Amino acid sequence: MTNDTTAAPPVLGVHSEVGKLRKVLVCAPGLAHRRLTPTNADDLLFDDVMWVENAQRDHADFVNKLRGRGVDVVELHDLLAGTMAIPDAREWLLDRKITANEVGLGLIDSTRAFLETLDPRGLAEYLIGGLAAADLPDEFRPDYLGLARESTGVQEYLMPPLPNTLYTRDTTCWLYGGVTLNPLYWPARHDETLLMKAVYRFHPDFTGSTVWWGDPEREWGQASFEGGDIMPVGNGVVLMGMSERTSRQAITQVAAALFANGAAEHVIVAGMPKLRSAMHLDTVFTFADRDVVTLYPKIMDSVHTFSLRPSDKAPGLTISDEGSRTFVEVVTRALGLPGMRVIETGGDVYASERQQWDSGNNAVAVEPGVVFTYDRNTQTNTLLRKAGVEVITIVGAELGRGRGGGHCMTCPLIREPVDF
Amino acid sequence: MTNDTTAAPPVLGVHSEVGKLRKVLVCAPGLAHRRLTPTNADDLLFDDVMWVENAQRDHADFVNKLRGRGVDVVELHDLLAGTMAIPDAREWLLDRKITANEVGLGLIDSTRAFLETLDPRGLAEYLIGGLAAADLPDEFRPDYLGLARESTGVQEYLMPPLPNTLYTRDTTCWLYGGVTLNPLYWPARHDETLLMKAVYRFHPDFTGSTVWWGDPEREWGQASFEGGDIMPVGNGVVLMGMSERTSRQAITQVAAALFANGAAEHVIVAGMPKLRSAMHLDTVFTFADRDVVTLYPKIMDSVHTFSLRPSDKAPGLTISDEGSRTFVEVVTRALGLPGMRVIETGGDVYASERQQWDSGNNAVAVEPGVVFTYDRNTQTNTLLRKAGVEVITIVGAELGRGRGGGHCMTCPLIREPVDF
Amino acid sequence: MTNDTTAAPPVLGVHSEVGKLRKVLVCAPGLAHRRLTPTNADDLLFDDVMWVENAQRDHADFVNKLRGRGVDVVELHDLLAGTMAIPDAREWLLDRKITANEVGLGLIDSTRAFLETLDPRGLAEYLIGGLAAADLPDEFRPDYLGLARESTGVQEYLMPPLPNTLYTRDTTCWLYGGVTLNPLYWPARHDETLLMKAVYRFHPDFTGSTVWWGDPEREWGQASFEGGDIMPVGNGVVLMGMSERTSRQAITQVAAALFANGAAEHVIVAGMPKLRSAMHLDTVFTFADRDVVTLYPKIMDSVHTFSLRPSDKAPGLTISDEGSRTFVEVVTRALGLPGMRVIETGGDVYASERQQWDSGNNAVAVEPGVVFTYDRNTQTNTLLRKAGVEVITIVGAELGRGRGGGHCMTCPLIREPVDF
Amino acid sequence: MTNDTTAAPPVLGVHSEVGKLRKVLVCAPGLAHRRLTPTNADDLLFDDVMWVENAQRDHADFVNKLRGRGVDVVELHDLLAGTMAIPDAREWLLDRKITANEVGLGLIDSTRAFLETLDPRGLAEYLIGGLAAADLPDEFRPDYLGLARESTGVQEYLMPPLPNTLYTRDTTCWLYGGVTLNPLYWPARHDETLLMKAVYRFHPDFTGSTVWWGDPEREWGQASFEGGDIMPVGNGVVLMGMSERTSRQAITQVAAALFANGAAEHVIVAGMPKLRSAMHLDTVFTFADRDVVTLYPKIMDSVHTFSLRPSDKAPGLTISDEGSRTFVEVVTRALGLPGMRVIETGGDVYASERQQWDSGNNAVAVEPGVVFTYDRNTQTNTLLRKAGVEVITIVGAELGRGRGGGHCMTCPLIREPVDF
Repeated sequence: MTNDTTAAPPVLGVHSEVGKLRKVLVCAPGLAHRRLTPTNADDLLFDDVMWVENAQRDHADFVNKLRGRGVDVVELHDLLAGTMAIPDAREWLLDRKITANEVGLGLIDSTRAFLETLDPRGLAEYLIGGLAAADLPDEFRPDYLGLARESTGVQEYLMPPLPNTLYTRDTTCWLYGGVTLNPLYWPARHDETLLMKAVYRFHPDFTGSTVWWGDPEREWGQASFEGGDIMPVGNGVVLMGMSERTSRQAITQVAAALFANGAAEHVIVAGMPKLRSAMHLDTVFTFADRDVVTLYPKIMDSVHTFSLRPSDKAPGLTISDEGSRTFVEVVTRALGLPGMRVIETGGDVYASERQQWDSGNNAVAVEPGVVFTYDRNTQTNTLLRKAGVEVITIVGAELGRGRGGGHCMTCPLIREPVDF
Repeated sequence: MTNDTTAAPPVLGVHSEVGKLRKVLVCAPGLAHRRLTPTNADDLLFDDVMWVENAQRDHADFVNKLRGRGVDVVELHDLLAGTMAIPDAREWLLDRKITANEVGLGLIDSTRAFLETLDPRGLAEYLIGGLAAADLPDEFRPDYLGLARESTGVQEYLMPPLPNTLYTRDTTCWLYGGVTLNPLYWPARHDETLLMKAVYRFHPDFTGSTVWWGDPEREWGQASFEGGDIMPVGNGVVLMGMSERTSRQAITQVAAALFANGAAEHVIVAGMPKLRSAMHLDTVFTFADRDVVTLYPKIMDSVHTFSLRPSDKAPGLTISDEGSRTFVEVVTRALGLPGMRVIETGGDVYASERQQWDSGNNAVAVEPGVVFTYDRNTQTNTLLRKAGVEVITIVGAELGRGRGGGHCMTCPLIREPVDF
Repeated sequence: MTNDTTAAPPVLGVHSEVGKLRKVLVCAPGLAHRRLTPTNADDLLFDDVMWVENAQRDHADFVNKLRGRGVDVVELHDLLAGTMAIPDAREWLLDRKITANEVGLGLIDSTRAFLETLDPRGLAEYLIGGLAAADLPDEFRPDYLGLARESTGVQEYLMPPLPNTLYTRDTTCWLYGGVTLNPLYWPARHDETLLMKAVYRFHPDFTGSTVWWGDPEREWGQASFEGGDIMPVGNGVVLMGMSERTSRQAITQVAAALFANGAAEHVIVAGMPKLRSAMHLDTVFTFADRDVVTLYPKIMDSVHTFSLRPSDKAPGLTISDEGSRTFVEVVTRALGLPGMRVIETGGDVYASERQQWDSGNNAVAVEPGVVFTYDRNTQTNTLLRKAGVEVITIVGAELGRGRGGGHCMTCPLIREPVDF
Repeated sequence: MTNDTTAAPPVLGVHSEVGKLRKVLVCAPGLAHRRLTPTNADDLLFDDVMWVENAQRDHADFVNKLRGRGVDVVELHDLLAGTMAIPDAREWLLDRKITANEVGLGLIDSTRAFLETLDPRGLAEYLIGGLAAADLPDEFRPDYLGLARESTGVQEYLMPPLPNTLYTRDTTCWLYGGVTLNPLYWPARHDETLLMKAVYRFHPDFTGSTVWWGDPEREWGQASFEGGDIMPVGNGVVLMGMSERTSRQAITQVAAALFANGAAEHVIVAGMPKLRSAMHLDTVFTFADRDVVTLYPKIMDSVHTFSLRPSDKAPGLTISDEGSRTFVEVVTRALGLPGMRVIETGGDVYASERQQWDSGNNAVAVEPGVVFTYDRNTQTNTLLRKAGVEVITIVGAELGRGRGGGHCMTCPLIREPVDF
């Protein structure tokens, strides 16, 4: 891993939102979701528990359909297992996870000793799924465990469960030829980025990647950044939702880094209302084709738009308030398009609110005009189809309970540009 | 409808929890559930929105399987349509629904006029599904509608949606040879009982039923009573959960009415902790066979048990505190059983909490040893099967989102006794 | 009590918001507030517990200052004690309070027996302060009390505490020559109106009053009405806030009743956003002088105004949408004033939000240009004084914790008209 | 500042909970509390807004009474102003506060430039009170400020307000001859410790202090530690509440550091239920005299007690579960006392819950048998007085709204030991 752009591998890179998707990172449901209970779900940012076996089935079906479209799909448990098979990587990550601050004095040695008994796959399961105090076998349970009250609460973990890895979109973002390692908003998600740093630092398919910004070993204060808000749409433009979870402190730093490296020329900021239902830009706005977007008007109508552009002077960027121009207008113009076709969330006032909630606007494209969405948003899907978009459905009954759809569950690693 | 037990029709009556189920009332998902949005779901007592088409499919499958077991299944929309085909019944019910207190002065005539244009089935749809101000056709929209701000909020209804009719168990209870018309705890559910009164007063299959207690046209103050807490287990015994929703004020009145009519000899009260996850007794305890119960120990272990028995002196009952005897012990003895086999919620601490939440203990029997439960609680279902219980599954992905299972969704009308 | 206007006593009547205040009803803090705990405060609609002794001291100071201004102040405990000294009144009220629905079967006789041992003052204390199961002396504790789990929870009361009687404004409203007996929004407050009906029915100073609308012995469904939203400003005009707590169903009924009796000619409805901080119109808008109002612009700017006027045709009123005219403009014109001086909540963005919360706009006038407000809202008080208004302060440290100020704590019984 | 115990200054050090208090750190209410509004109070961990002028008056009275008892009282604004008068200290602190992660790119230079115009006192005011975007004078407002939406929300601050500095107890703890610089649980409080580090590093009265543990420039993960949970009671014993805010990860590290330095021989851990009303040990348990404690039994009865003692083997401590021994028993024995007199929160079930909430058990001693408490908890104060304790009262109407009393508002710097 380096910050030197010349070291970037030729393959990884995301050059649009709808160009041919070549390679993508996903994460299957698993142990972390078996940990979810009505009591702890809120702390882990889930609205409800899910039936894990069925969620796995539905996720596998999604992956199969992606592969059927020629996409190279990488799964995080596999990737992390591959990384943990490298002794230096295992040592590096466990040195950072099994510390006095996390597991507590007196439990470090035994916890580490237990983890060292595991094969790479088993270790990856616990790294993502969390290690509860109750998981330690008897021979690894010192007296010190007495202090850790054993219950379903979050604090009794020696390593926290990371169920939001399901949404690989947020943790890292490929923006053209480089990647960001994102400081996520909620502390419950911080360790996701540490796992990804281990991958980028040690896994042979990822080492050498250009990192534009971010490092989970540093403190970022108010600068939080989540991929659900970020879209490299092509033409040197990046869209960034300024939301509850992605702050101006992060947006300006990433924009400056992109500009300094010549990786982008224009960042369009969507100033979003701070609502749980619209936590990320991609929960209310995604692309379905070169000139087709699907959006939830009730939220998008109140977005305030700004443009950031490179500057020779410190801090390397200028800001302009787009005033009364709508976000869609600013994006359309920046892409050099004559117009944009807008597919709003379908149905009456009840149905559209229900479908936005169920990730109805959270489409992910595998190529121009071909998207994946949840099956349950039938009215919005029909409108997309009437607009000539091919819609492939994902079963959402279980997967949707964490409030993320196809766009959230995919982190593109290689996506081709499109012409505008 | 009368309070005279001699007028009771021969057919209706529920004499156990697991005897042969002959006739049952259910209510299919529909318009009321299409009204649910993230904004109003809490007010309507649902945790999440549901995909109504799939919920209808899963409910129809449940009904088909019940019928396959020889149960006569009555559906509430059908029953109410049949009732609304009777002119006196329509007049009686609309006189009570379309009032100044509910629709507002100035909107009574036009609302009623619109409803009078509907056929019985259409009227039943709105009675259960709710009539939004926006539903009125243009020719029925007077100036007065201006005050009713049109949005997805609950208050803009001219008749409220009643999505909890899905849980027919709560609204009325057949206890041996008579029925209660229950005052439900939450105001959002009060009108459910009014609909049922129309049915019992006018529908030929129901008129003449003995009503032990309850009348939706009266105020009941602190006396609230919900069928999910009530189980006529046979042998003259009725179990009653004293919960957030079923109060001692109601329990003592119903017990006294049963005792006065000789309909029961022993009411066993389960003093429950007041928790959302254990809102009714049947969310943590149901019967699967004559001598088999499934229960969630974390809640049931903290139940405090009382016994009510008839008395010659006012107010017609005595109370005894069962002290340290467990609820199961008291029930077992009251039924004259040598013992009770207890199937606890399955799996580890996470799984059992998840399954209780997903109605894992909410079984409904069609005959001794044959129950319906949700498919998702695989570990509890396996334990039931290992105990020799035949478990037929209901798809719970959508139906379960209102926190009720097979027991909640069924109101037995005729069930045979069992021998103990 | 009668609905016949000819029977109205000459003395009671409220003809403006700022005319000379002759007689007013208040309620001192007491036992009901000693019941407030962090656990039950929410259920009883209080944000925090209060130091009752100091609240009593501050309330007594408020009363003394009112008397110093020549106002005849009636206190509710006194008034109710006076009423309970009348045997018929005591019987009437206890027949309605000590019922199976409220205290539970088996506890009626002993509860009633205990209450009959009390003198009128002692009975009034419990009627307002609530009767906990634990309050019953040993000789009045039957076995049935076992079911009533004794804790600080609300449900263990045999009569509920009514701490919101502190806000006498809400329960009944004198509108010109007659009064309304209001159905309050929250069930926790319903019994307040029943106490007031006993007063109006039996107390010699109140019998014979004209009642425009309302009866606590009837069900009112969606028609809720609270005095904090209602202002008889004179000139035949009544202002009514349509809020979370005062519904269009009630507003239209009261307007029709006033119009039918010739008591008013114009009702101006303020369509308010439904927020806890702006629960009543008088929390964001009150009069300080004939042509001076104090208001919180952040809320009042979003009010949508309607006018109701008498009509010969059913239902006796017409409605007109005032469109873009502000509420203040409509009120000014209706009063025939050339203009209105508006005193906004004082201070910067933090201070004005803090002061509105602390009832900074909740002034009550004793005569034109002389108002009572809380001491803590120093910036708003200064602005009122600079506008020539005499501001007398009430200590608000304790009294303000239920989110009501001087206007909320006073129910004018006799107030003179003003000239416009 | 050093970790070398030989460099400890002779003067600072806290050797008991009730010995003669020589020097104490407090923080007066101020700008930070003027920022509190109903909208942001929750985020800033306050239950309600306060009348700042009166809170200042009451706090000044508390300080005067402390001084009247011979205590040297240091105030944080003064202390920080003194520190900011040192150029190196100012540079050190602003380098850490005015960063891209906190104020955002493009705002660093102008924010810093504005702060450099301030005198030390003015700078200290903003460091504690927060710097809102709106506070920047026009000449320091670049275009970049456009992104920072100006409202009362928390995120629009360039430096966050720190209203919880009022509770100096939590941020740093003197434990015998050294101090801890605590990582506080809530992110909203993290910067408090950074301010204190500047003081300890640069202020001549504090440099050279021995720091046992903690550094606000490092990440502490799950290891959070708050002084309200920590009591150096003497005899080599330290009490530590393991609560929502003080974790076992921190407790074991601090215990090991104390043991390694020979500063303590026994840490008694109170495993507390995780409740807002019992957020720290000192909200339910404090000392009033050598052998007198005041406590809230409803919480303390459910405490599970552990003892930590030094060990030669890594990690330098052993743990023993005290099983069924009560916390008071374990403390009494550890202090070598023949017995402990326990003063429970006074009054009935309502009053004791109310008084615990109002910090009734949160006493701070100035010498054995002389304590400060809030005036409003009259029943508990009376019980203390009857037990021979001199109780001096603090006016709590405003100061108590953040849920902290005299113990919370004081950070002892020098306190003498007591004999047991």
